Amino acid sequence: MSNEKRRIGVVAPASRMYPEVPDRVRALAQSLYPDRTPEIVFHPQCFAAHAHFAGDDPTRARAFLDIANDESYDALWFGRGGYGSCRIVEDVMGGLTAAAERKTYLGYSDTGVLLAALYRAGFEAVAHGPVAQDILRQEGGDAAAGRALAWMVERAPEALEPTVCRTRKTAAFNMTVLSQLLGTPLQPDLDGHVLMLEEVAEAMYRIDRSLFHITSNPAIRRVHGIMLGRCSRITPNEPDFGMNEEEVARYWCRRSGIPFLGRADIGHDVDNKIVPFGVA
Amino acid sequence: MSNEKRRIGVVAPASRMYPEVPDRVRALAQSLYPDRTPEIVFHPQCFAAHAHFAGDDPTRARAFLDIANDESYDALWFGRGGYGSCRIVEDVMGGLTAAAERKTYLGYSDTGVLLAALYRAGFEAVAHGPVAQDILRQEGGDAAAGRALAWMVERAPEALEPTVCRTRKTAAFNMTVLSQLLGTPLQPDLDGHVLMLEEVAEAMYRIDRSLFHITSNPAIRRVHGIMLGRCSRITPNEPDFGMNEEEVARYWCRRSGIPFLGRADIGHDVDNKIVPFGVA
Repeated sequence: MSNEKRRIGVVAPASRMYPEVPDRVRALAQSLYPDRTPEIVFHPQCFAAHAHFAGDDPTRARAFLDIANDESYDALWFGRGGYGSCRIVEDVMGGLTAAAERKTYLGYSDTGVLLAALYRAGFEAVAHGPVAQDILRQEGGDAAAGRALAWMVERAPEALEPTVCRTRKTAAFNMTVLSQLLGTPLQPDLDGHVLMLEEVAEAMYRIDRSLFHITSNPAIRRVHGIMLGRCSRITPNEPDFGMNEEEVARYWCRRSGIPFLGRADIGHDVDNKIVPFGVA
Repeated sequence: MSNEKRRIGVVAPASRMYPEVPDRVRALAQSLYPDRTPEIVFHPQCFAAHAHFAGDDPTRARAFLDIANDESYDALWFGRGGYGSCRIVEDVMGGLTAAAERKTYLGYSDTGVLLAALYRAGFEAVAHGPVAQDILRQEGGDAAAGRALAWMVERAPEALEPTVCRTRKTAAFNMTVLSQLLGTPLQPDLDGHVLMLEEVAEAMYRIDRSLFHITSNPAIRRVHGIMLGRCSRITPNEPDFGMNEEEVARYWCRRSGIPFLGRADIGHDVDNKIVPFGVA
């Protein structure tokens, strides 16, 4: 990448971003890149409110397209996950222009619906990694947001999940989000990919069920293998499930014939590393 | 149906059944059918314990096959849902013999995984309806279990969901359970069916997401229409979702072009009516 200043647009396709995020993010960007501070534009939609969502469906779709289709932006950064990307993905994908193809897209969790659709459409700079609101996480929020900036500004190799390499395709998803794309026209083609999966705030029986679903899909069975990210804030299982998330992942990999490739350094936390979709 | 006594076998393919169920169910059967009391055999597996499950996977699969493949049983009744049917469905389907095809199968919720697989395999007497443990529900548990017996013993028309008719194929599922079958070899062919969907103990955003998933599946879009069962014990949504379950169902039906056919008399409650898979 050149030394020119990057321009990053932030949209929130699902839940509303917190109002304190922009100042924190801009200060961080200034401190990390004093000579070429990226311009970070938070679309007003990030702060809109429509019941559960950061604005109603048309508002969120339009905001995405405002940034994606604007030549002046180098990257579209998701402000926050939550829930709602599936409601706008059809309108977003139907409204993209050529300017959108050259951008970097970065986010995770619920926004995986949009990452999947963009990747499926052939976009080449789609990645799983921290959202802007991760800067508010305790003990390390700056590191998470800084890692996202390092990827968007300079493709810093140290921002990458450590096993990501230039010779093997990768993809990363929240388990539930990927599960809810299976059997729909949004399901991405992950043949030959290392598929990294993480989860948050689900009971162990639900993790087991999601992995049943994912590993039972014939197309998913053509992945190179599955790596298990962190499963955090697991909710109580009554009675105890009797297996932890790694045992469960190994179980379904064995049953489905998918190689289990160990742990991945991703999750709903400050250590969440960047995983490019496709080859880095 | 003839007046001969029916023989019903009960298995629990997922979570453990409570020990007080058999006495309650047998007393009810005696009171409802004093002259031809059905013999109700609770497989010992119903009370087995293996962490989350009513026995480990091989134990549950074997119990299912013990009843299903035994000519002397007229019906296999699920003792309880919970979670776990997806772990045994492959072994169950691989082990069925001709004797299994002539039986009635009755259950709902998690056991929908097995109902789907049996229906897909061409079994003709598969139905969605109360499990044995529903007899323990407050205020009406006997009515729920009695309705299941009325279906298994005498095909009582009053046990049926009121819109079920002899000319239109039907199917019924818990939303999450059907969602987790989409895109797998277990997904049932529901072309032309009235598809009834119910849910329990999920937040509204999850109901919305499940309906996105279900209505986005190209094969599901060939149903005759969707009817919405009850969505009970909906967990809090923060912030408020802004739509209720019927508004959400109508929204996704409109978006997907699937006719919304109104409310169905099914759910996780004592009023849960019988919905045969296929034509009644």
